Amino acid sequence: MTTVSPNKSDISNEVFEDIKETRKTNYINNFWQDLSHNDEELYNTWNQLKSVMSEGEIPYVYKEMIYVAVSIINNCNYCIHSHTYAAKKAGMTNAQYKELLSVILMANKTNALATALGTQVDDVFDASKE
Amino acid sequence: MTTVSPNKSDISNEVFEDIKETRKTNYINNFWQDLSHNDEELYNTWNQLKSVMSEGEIPYVYKEMIYVAVSIINNCNYCIHSHTYAAKKAGMTNAQYKELLSVILMANKTNALATALGTQVDDVFDASKE
Amino acid sequence: MTTVSPNKSDISNEVFEDIKETRKTNYINNFWQDLSHNDEELYNTWNQLKSVMSEGEIPYVYKEMIYVAVSIINNCNYCIHSHTYAAKKAGMTNAQYKELLSVILMANKTNALATALGTQVDDVFDASKE
Amino acid sequence: MTTVSPNKSDISNEVFEDIKETRKTNYINNFWQDLSHNDEELYNTWNQLKSVMSEGEIPYVYKEMIYVAVSIINNCNYCIHSHTYAAKKAGMTNAQYKELLSVILMANKTNALATALGTQVDDVFDASKE
Amino acid sequence: MTTVSPNKSDISNEVFEDIKETRKTNYINNFWQDLSHNDEELYNTWNQLKSVMSEGEIPYVYKEMIYVAVSIINNCNYCIHSHTYAAKKAGMTNAQYKELLSVILMANKTNALATALGTQVDDVFDASKE
Amino acid sequence: MTTVSPNKSDISNEVFEDIKETRKTNYINNFWQDLSHNDEELYNTWNQLKSVMSEGEIPYVYKEMIYVAVSIINNCNYCIHSHTYAAKKAGMTNAQYKELLSVILMANKTNALATALGTQVDDVFDASKE
Repeated sequence: MTTVSPNKSDISNEVFEDIKETRKTNYINNFWQDLSHNDEELYNTWNQLKSVMSEGEIPYVYKEMIYVAVSIINNCNYCIHSHTYAAKKAGMTNAQYKELLSVILMANKTNALATALGTQVDDVFDASKE
Repeated sequence: MTTVSPNKSDISNEVFEDIKETRKTNYINNFWQDLSHNDEELYNTWNQLKSVMSEGEIPYVYKEMIYVAVSIINNCNYCIHSHTYAAKKAGMTNAQYKELLSVILMANKTNALATALGTQVDDVFDASKE
Repeated sequence: MTTVSPNKSDISNEVFEDIKETRKTNYINNFWQDLSHNDEELYNTWNQLKSVMSEGEIPYVYKEMIYVAVSIINNCNYCIHSHTYAAKKAGMTNAQYKELLSVILMANKTNALATALGTQVDDVFDASKE
Repeated sequence: MTTVSPNKSDISNEVFEDIKETRKTNYINNFWQDLSHNDEELYNTWNQLKSVMSEGEIPYVYKEMIYVAVSIINNCNYCIHSHTYAAKKAGMTNAQYKELLSVILMANKTNALATALGTQVDDVFDASKE
Repeated sequence: MTTVSPNKSDISNEVFEDIKETRKTNYINNFWQDLSHNDEELYNTWNQLKSVMSEGEIPYVYKEMIYVAVSIINNCNYCIHSHTYAAKKAGMTNAQYKELLSVILMANKTNALATALGTQVDDVFDASKE
Repeated sequence: MTTVSPNKSDISNEVFEDIKETRKTNYINNFWQDLSHNDEELYNTWNQLKSVMSEGEIPYVYKEMIYVAVSIINNCNYCIHSHTYAAKKAGMTNAQYKELLSVILMANKTNALATALGTQVDDVFDASKE
């Protein structure tokens, strides 16, 4: 017996099988279900995600925390929920989650302040672009 | 001889001295200069920042990367420059910076996609709030 | 018999009748219902919308696609739904919807990249302001 | 004689040559110059852009208008300038530019209104997701 | 008899009691309930809020209107609802609410226009920073 | 002798004269200069602004503070400068400006927190919509 839905295209089924194998789960979350109406975007997005989020120079759990930070500032409810879940599964502790929130709030505050003050970039920071 | 400006309030001078000592530098960057017109906000913001950004459950360098992520999504030019500089000074390699950008772009893309698709939060993710 | 609600102000009723006639429908969607608590804003918004969104130098269907793009970036759930619906009703095909999403995602990505890189505007582009 | 810079990587040079050929120009604008510090991102972004922005189901000039709309809402100064330039080069008239601005402003206004009012999505619009 | 929940930490209970006393209510709204998983953030946020939002140089009711304005632009559904409620309770009339919406929409429109036009700051406005 | 520029359209000149008279100044700031390429938008925006920002149920100086709040959250550098200038000219004191910043920062923080926590709107707040 198989979980392949007869209505799905071959590409969607292939991606769904890869999601299940990569994540060791039988559950395909709503984002990928919704995206399956668009074969090409589904295929590209999944393969980019798999590559970008794999363990690399930045440990995976910190990648998920960065993902959560972006999702909060972008006000993406779905993404906040799914990546907070992923970060916790990857080992983020409650203490780390509290620190993560603090860093995001701090950055958000000084962002608004620098914008309000119209602060000019210091030469020393531009030099760092070299 | 001293670098204390006679026109600065006592509180500003105290914060500026603490910035110099904490960061082992004589340079006060523009953000703190601009904020010094508002003693109370200067004092609170610096002390919160010092506390939030100190080495903790999340290593300092990853805190700076999260700060950069928030600043890019918030489109805060000053903050992007100053915290990319800080992250590099804290040891972020070029390879890590490339991965950081990739994670931010990936998160930003799936944020837009989930928003466009109006994806509903899966029950399994909500359960993770417990 | 008439669909005019006795509780509605004269102005709201007038606008509602115009919406029905313009759109060849008996259905007043929630946005206009909610806005009817504010007669002046309802009247102005509807009349601006009718004028701006009419067939003009830019064909109507592309105007609706631009509307969807703005709504996705603004993260306005209601607006994404109502204007995707309107765009489809105006003839947007599934293939066009896929391209629309691709363009929005592409623009969103290079926006984040140009912001992250702090790219300076080329003189040649400024010249285009003449 | 060649315009290939000796300091550029092979990949950057290859992309730069493709940009010149595709756009029938010798000018590489600042965005691609800045991105050339990141070979892989440069290569991927250019090739995605070339594919997404090619003439397709949506005519190229309307794709550039959608790009401008996203860039204005994202507040990306560089992107507004470069894509307004591109849209004009692709045939966008002044009359169309005025309409484009009107549509963007209209969408932005009703986005803020629907958000302020907390308007619920009508069932009829959700049905359009089928 | 007491409303103190046995599962709450001492700090949460203390903050909850202060909320009830300050606001003359027995109702703790969802925001503070959700935040009570993070004692330190709950304590800091409540005490900052109590201080910032107290009657001062800007009358309280206008502070709540500014709060609503920020919440609409940030697209924070919860915040729009809770602070519109608070503003009305503090005396905001329907006529004032209509004017508030008009000012927010006007500001939002000219913000988008200035961004689209890439307008440079006039020297006379910069002088106002002195 | 007159300040009317011979290159300006009649409508632009009329609006410029009205700006000068209304504001008791001979200075036309850059925003209106830039907008004068688009007669209709110039005319509509100025007349809406004049109407919306006139003394009404909300005193003018608080309207300008709300304008500043929107402009900071929208990250519109031009608008922050011009409306902070206008607010100060309308009597905003330094003490009020500090409170204004505090309210904006506070709202921005709780907006991010409510978004991060995914807080559900309390029934009591929805009831306030009646």
